[in-house]
Amino acid sequence: MVPNIDEHYMRLALEEAKKAEEQGEVPIGAIIVHQNTIVARAHNLTETLNDVTAHAEMQAITIAAGECGKYLNECTLYVTVEPCIMCGGAIGWAQVKKVVYGASDPKRGYSNFSPSPLHPKCEVVSGVLEEECGKIVSNFFKKKR
Amino acid sequence: MVPNIDEHYMRLALEEAKKAEEQGEVPIGAIIVHQNTIVARAHNLTETLNDVTAHAEMQAITIAAGECGKYLNECTLYVTVEPCIMCGGAIGWAQVKKVVYGASDPKRGYSNFSPSPLHPKCEVVSGVLEEECGKIVSNFFKKKR
Repeated sequence: MVPNIDEHYMRLALEEAKKAEEQGEVPIGAIIVHQNTIVARAHNLTETLNDVTAHAEMQAITIAAGECGKYLNECTLYVTVEPCIMCGGAIGWAQVKKVVYGASDPKRGYSNFSPSPLHPKCEVVSGVLEEECGKIVSNFFKKKR
Repeated sequence: MVPNIDEHYMRLALEEAKKAEEQGEVPIGAIIVHQNTIVARAHNLTETLNDVTAHAEMQAITIAAGECGKYLNECTLYVTVEPCIMCGGAIGWAQVKKVVYGASDPKRGYSNFSPSPLHPKCEVVSGVLEEECGKIVSNFFKKKR
């Protein structure tokens, strides 16, 4: 059986999300891959850093830029939840080549906005490990209530 | 003559933009004010930090959060150019109370996007020192050519 590479990296993004959960953060994780090499692992840190801009994707982009330069046009971003419009804007500026996300975010997701903030050439794959990526977030909020 | 408070703070944002210019950065500056006190001064640092997310507004929001907490719902953000959609998203997450900008950005400005990424209660004032704020950027790009 050929391993599904998108699922493989999404599992690593989920591991990041679990680290966020352990820190009391909304559990969202991100991985950036350049030519089969992971160049960034990050998770949401908005509470820890007391900073609304500290989303997993934003940090992953900043980390990856240190490895690849600020344009990530040969990189794939894996993120457990659909990026928000802020992160969508950052993904656009960074010219990320491909975005793979797990769960959709019908309220806050970038795809609610028009036009798309992503680079016109950016390939998007959604729904990878969707259930698992969504459940970790919904369970987190259930426990919070 | 009553001093125009928005112009006053926009001049300080322009001073930040000039610092950016001196560093070879696209000259955009931002100031955040909380109850008549400046809680953040920042300018674009995308080249210096090699990071597309290092816009003036993003840094100003991060700095201000250190002073005021992560929700800036009693703060006014002054920025020399209309925020992009990434910064618009961050301004929305931070629940910034009021945004004052100088020059419009018809290509990249957040107001090109629908729905608005800003908090529904956010007040927006545009066109403050518009000419000066626009010229410093257009002159920068003229010199680059």
